[in-house]
Amino acid sequence: MSHVSLRCESCGAAHPSNMDILGCHGCGCPLDVEYTAAGPSVPIAGYDVRMPFHEPAATLSLGEGNTPVVELSKIGEALGIKRLDVKLEFMNPTGSYKDRGTAVMLSVARELGIREIVEDSSGNAGASVSAYAARSGIKAHIFAPASAPAAKLKQIRVYGAEVHAIEGSRDDTTDAAIAFYKRNGLVYASHAWSPFFFEGTKTFAFEVARRYGGEPPSHVVFPVGNGGLFLGAWRGFSELLDDGRIGRMPRLHAVQAANAMPITARSRGGGWSQADAQPTIAGGISVAAPARGGQVVDVLRRANGTAVAVAETEIASMQKALARDEGIFAEPTSAAALAGIHHLAAEGVIAPGDSVLAPITGFGLKDEVRFDVEG
Amino acid sequence: MSHVSLRCESCGAAHPSNMDILGCHGCGCPLDVEYTAAGPSVPIAGYDVRMPFHEPAATLSLGEGNTPVVELSKIGEALGIKRLDVKLEFMNPTGSYKDRGTAVMLSVARELGIREIVEDSSGNAGASVSAYAARSGIKAHIFAPASAPAAKLKQIRVYGAEVHAIEGSRDDTTDAAIAFYKRNGLVYASHAWSPFFFEGTKTFAFEVARRYGGEPPSHVVFPVGNGGLFLGAWRGFSELLDDGRIGRMPRLHAVQAANAMPITARSRGGGWSQADAQPTIAGGISVAAPARGGQVVDVLRRANGTAVAVAETEIASMQKALARDEGIFAEPTSAAALAGIHHLAAEGVIAPGDSVLAPITGFGLKDEVRFDVEG
Repeated sequence: MSHVSLRCESCGAAHPSNMDILGCHGCGCPLDVEYTAAGPSVPIAGYDVRMPFHEPAATLSLGEGNTPVVELSKIGEALGIKRLDVKLEFMNPTGSYKDRGTAVMLSVARELGIREIVEDSSGNAGASVSAYAARSGIKAHIFAPASAPAAKLKQIRVYGAEVHAIEGSRDDTTDAAIAFYKRNGLVYASHAWSPFFFEGTKTFAFEVARRYGGEPPSHVVFPVGNGGLFLGAWRGFSELLDDGRIGRMPRLHAVQAANAMPITARSRGGGWSQADAQPTIAGGISVAAPARGGQVVDVLRRANGTAVAVAETEIASMQKALARDEGIFAEPTSAAALAGIHHLAAEGVIAPGDSVLAPITGFGLKDEVRFDVEG
Repeated sequence: MSHVSLRCESCGAAHPSNMDILGCHGCGCPLDVEYTAAGPSVPIAGYDVRMPFHEPAATLSLGEGNTPVVELSKIGEALGIKRLDVKLEFMNPTGSYKDRGTAVMLSVARELGIREIVEDSSGNAGASVSAYAARSGIKAHIFAPASAPAAKLKQIRVYGAEVHAIEGSRDDTTDAAIAFYKRNGLVYASHAWSPFFFEGTKTFAFEVARRYGGEPPSHVVFPVGNGGLFLGAWRGFSELLDDGRIGRMPRLHAVQAANAMPITARSRGGGWSQADAQPTIAGGISVAAPARGGQVVDVLRRANGTAVAVAETEIASMQKALARDEGIFAEPTSAAALAGIHHLAAEGVIAPGDSVLAPITGFGLKDEVRFDVEG
């Protein structure tokens, strides 16, 4: 009856579409939405875009998406790039791109009659899920490390979610969330696992295609932790390419902090292991063991992309340049992507005449300022 | 040579268009932009809109405007209103509607070759001017009370403006800014005085007209301190009406905090005077002596509007309802407008079957949370 099934990205097994299934019954790998029949579509940037819910008119929205693109002329010149644009994803209802994914994930949850969900996040995803849950009347439990910044926990609480502060590591928080949802028979609405989340973030690609008249920039450079926007954008550009709406796939690159670079290590080789992870000021990509790490590495290969890792000082310096030269107050995580462009240009992956786009994924207001604002 | 002159809203005297003139040479009253010849226009929400600069292609932008409208079904039901919508103005590049005005004001400044400006603000306007000044390479001096919240001063400093912290009252801050710009031969880019600022905020009205198919809601309800959005919206709706693009002017209402209600007092009568002003949690409308107070009262009369004043507890309670019921994290100032709708409905100004729109002018992330987030 549904137009959707959930396909294992690894072994290919198909599963019925619901929110009880987290990973493939066969191999445990993450699942992706697959459209198996004609179904509803919604207008995104002038395209009809397939979606996994059944009643588009009843979907949940806080006005997410439709973010502007602006040029960074000064930073572009400093990096030696002819045309450098950013898409201001922090201009979303809770201040990060996560709202694209949450809107679709919770629209599906509401259609399924789900009343109570569990998520683990210390930052943007937690705030986003808390807000959309409030709007839809769903009770949300957000698990976060007890050590998370107070300001981030406050935003999560503002919208009404119940925050479960967990002592220990980030992994301990995930373990506690999983134990809680299993014990209480609830749904795990995870931005790292749920295939519906990535179906929401794919809208980014449709907006880019429209903005550039069907010819996306040569390179799109993402900060990557769990790959929430990177993988969604890949899905979107793939749909556009399959439908003949764009002529070629842009190269999709991944930037990580050198202090948490599992994907860069797997993609490029080298001696980094999870045990080498250190704290990074780029909290949104502080992920040592990403749920979809293998999928990100696979997409990098297929999208002719390169992964690079950047130093903490480079992130802080780029946060300052974005604010002082361009008037954009970005989270350190977003500044990391810009810092990565410097590496990609130095490696010759990006040529001076190429066009480059990066998302500014989260608002600096939500995080710490990592440079001396008096200086 | 210019297509623009500056007209005194009070005595009608015309002045040449530049940023050295603050008030009318005759009577000292605020000036408004008047288009005296054909000039450039820019596309706003599908309309060609006249603007006071000369080269639209060279204007300054951070992607401001184009904000979404969402329905508040739960709060609307609680207030007994059939259709209550909000336009999420906090989804602007620095987190408030001020960016609409700043973009135009600083585009004009850049065209005029101005290199250094002065503004006084303890909050959203200061951050907005700091950001656009950074982007345009203009040096900004922002005067703010030394007692302003640290978080607000931090956002202003992030973008690189020089902050002048002034001991004393909010009026002392304005006096210091004015003395400084005069002493140093600089330009006073004031969001309260500059006619170019209001020419930017008029874009709000064009987006509303487009969103509602040329038939704006019956009532638009604004939080009003200096009237930065209220007066701009009036200008925009007036242009639309003059050009036959809308059939009628919506009623424009003003909401103030009871602790700072000069416009409500002037509009409705009553014993309030500037000496009665008290601190309010709605910092964006904490203005005891608005520069354009007389103009706001005049527009209220012409737009068949009503001014109301709300209590601090009503503001805090509405901030909580917006977050918990609708998933919107608003500044207390924005919550005040919603609280005012309750008064307007109780007074019979708004009937249950009417359609109502309010802007959510600033992001809650920028301000204090005024309810118990644990409760």
